[in-house]
Amino acid sequence: MKDIVKSALKGDNLSIARLISRAEREVMADPVGSADLLSAMRTIHKKVRGVPVVGVTGVGGSGKSTLVARLAREYRKDGKRVGIIAIDPTSPFSGGALLGDRVRMSDIMTDKGIFIRSMGTRGAFGGLASAVYDVAWILDACGFDAIIVETVGVGQDEIDVVKIAETTLVVLVPGLGDSIQMIKAGIMEIGDVLVVNKADMPGVEQTVGELEAMLDLGGGRMKDRKIPVIRTVAKTGEGVIELYAALCAHREYLEKTVGRDTICRRRYEGALLEIVKDKVMERMLDEFGAGGHAQKLVDKIVRSEIDLRTAADEIIQHGGKNGSHSK
Amino acid sequence: MKDIVKSALKGDNLSIARLISRAEREVMADPVGSADLLSAMRTIHKKVRGVPVVGVTGVGGSGKSTLVARLAREYRKDGKRVGIIAIDPTSPFSGGALLGDRVRMSDIMTDKGIFIRSMGTRGAFGGLASAVYDVAWILDACGFDAIIVETVGVGQDEIDVVKIAETTLVVLVPGLGDSIQMIKAGIMEIGDVLVVNKADMPGVEQTVGELEAMLDLGGGRMKDRKIPVIRTVAKTGEGVIELYAALCAHREYLEKTVGRDTICRRRYEGALLEIVKDKVMERMLDEFGAGGHAQKLVDKIVRSEIDLRTAADEIIQHGGKNGSHSK
Repeated sequence: MKDIVKSALKGDNLSIARLISRAEREVMADPVGSADLLSAMRTIHKKVRGVPVVGVTGVGGSGKSTLVARLAREYRKDGKRVGIIAIDPTSPFSGGALLGDRVRMSDIMTDKGIFIRSMGTRGAFGGLASAVYDVAWILDACGFDAIIVETVGVGQDEIDVVKIAETTLVVLVPGLGDSIQMIKAGIMEIGDVLVVNKADMPGVEQTVGELEAMLDLGGGRMKDRKIPVIRTVAKTGEGVIELYAALCAHREYLEKTVGRDTICRRRYEGALLEIVKDKVMERMLDEFGAGGHAQKLVDKIVRSEIDLRTAADEIIQHGGKNGSHSK
Repeated sequence: MKDIVKSALKGDNLSIARLISRAEREVMADPVGSADLLSAMRTIHKKVRGVPVVGVTGVGGSGKSTLVARLAREYRKDGKRVGIIAIDPTSPFSGGALLGDRVRMSDIMTDKGIFIRSMGTRGAFGGLASAVYDVAWILDACGFDAIIVETVGVGQDEIDVVKIAETTLVVLVPGLGDSIQMIKAGIMEIGDVLVVNKADMPGVEQTVGELEAMLDLGGGRMKDRKIPVIRTVAKTGEGVIELYAALCAHREYLEKTVGRDTICRRRYEGALLEIVKDKVMERMLDEFGAGGHAQKLVDKIVRSEIDLRTAADEIIQHGGKNGSHSK
């Protein structure tokens, strides 16, 4: 394991991939992780520089993946190595089909300055969000200059995953009526940069107009900064330079106003909360298993001998005790 | 409060609405709830009969709401009172716009045999799922013969909410490529009845074919029962009778194989888990607040004095202790 960490830190992509696999496998299976992994991650954390992490979210069919591929190339042109973490199972990075062949996926697949990692969506309870943090730290420490995290769809899960990013890109498309829906679903709250992709389709002006009106009304995330709405056509690459510039500008703005140390600190805080969530819920789910304490309490509830809230308190106490004894 | 419960149990819709508001407000604000509410809910629980609960999920624009309105009428024709819980903020039941005027919303809005309740989507942490259970129990105890829960979109949140339902309807539309996406996202796992709505649009045969092929390959929820795929046109009402029959058939199947007691028991178990989740996470989030124990640990992580997993354990211990002292 030590050798793997050593060569990963020297920038060997195969070792990086191995280290990531190890971290992902362990973290998704069990929030605790082995002593070996803990030790490796301690070494990694000392080398973390706090490189930019961009989260990309948006509904299926909005062309997120093509846009991510285009963005990766902009980073490369700028002399930067970039890591892509794809959580979307329909993403071509995860084996999904890429519609349209204008962006040559093979180009970016064979570029050693681009590291692509696809991760499964989460199982019964958590694990994914904290694994994403580990993967990002590994990429950061091993010399990648920026990280893009692509998520599937929109929802609470996506918001949890995207918390790792200090810059979140929300991808919309003209027409579909999605803008209103995403606003209602709270997705606007997380967007630092909004993109209307497929800007060669009809209805683009209306969608951009709606978004800008909404932002003027104070619907956006930051009060002291105008949130840019950018038109792109990912298939042809139109608008991608502007998008890249907007992402860099947002990071610069944060470095000036918030500072890199705080960005790093927030990332640690976010990961810590995810690990706490996973561990606590694992304990509680143990209580609900066959023969667990919760089953006896459900029997009592059915017989009207106890109410739900009192039963919940008992489970929490019992689970807490079990946890401190056995783990 | 006692008077409200009394007249609610007699079937007075205004009292039912008041009781629900009280439960929703308290539960969403604080997982504990007042002694008054606990006492009211104890009375309610004794009257719960375990009526059918149908969960309706599907992507935005699939016509879920129109379908729910049509279904409500089928229940009425069958002599049953029906409660609708709409969690979708874009639903017309929640004040969203109904596309197409073929279904006269006003008809069902003024029918005293139909009770409509819209609920907000969840805030920072939980509350919603457990509130939905309370609302469903109130409707059940107060004489409604069936309950329909309509959720927004698809995702982990929806899956949590839909757990209350023993019959889950997944609504798809032809063409959009959503079927593949929903299958990948695991939505097929929760569907007991699948509907291809807007079956007058092109591509319906292909979508139905894809779904049936998927089900034949064992992608469906139940191994010993064929999952029906039903074509509907909610706007005209086509196929709604067949859909209603399929929902009733699924419930009958469950009553025979699983039994009503177990259906009720599972509902209690589901609610208990949601309350435990909410309470535990509330405690843990307290730790992360300004001046909370987690902040000190993040400082240590930044200085590489402690690793994330060890810090997580400390927070859980600290949060557990705080919880048992102060609450």
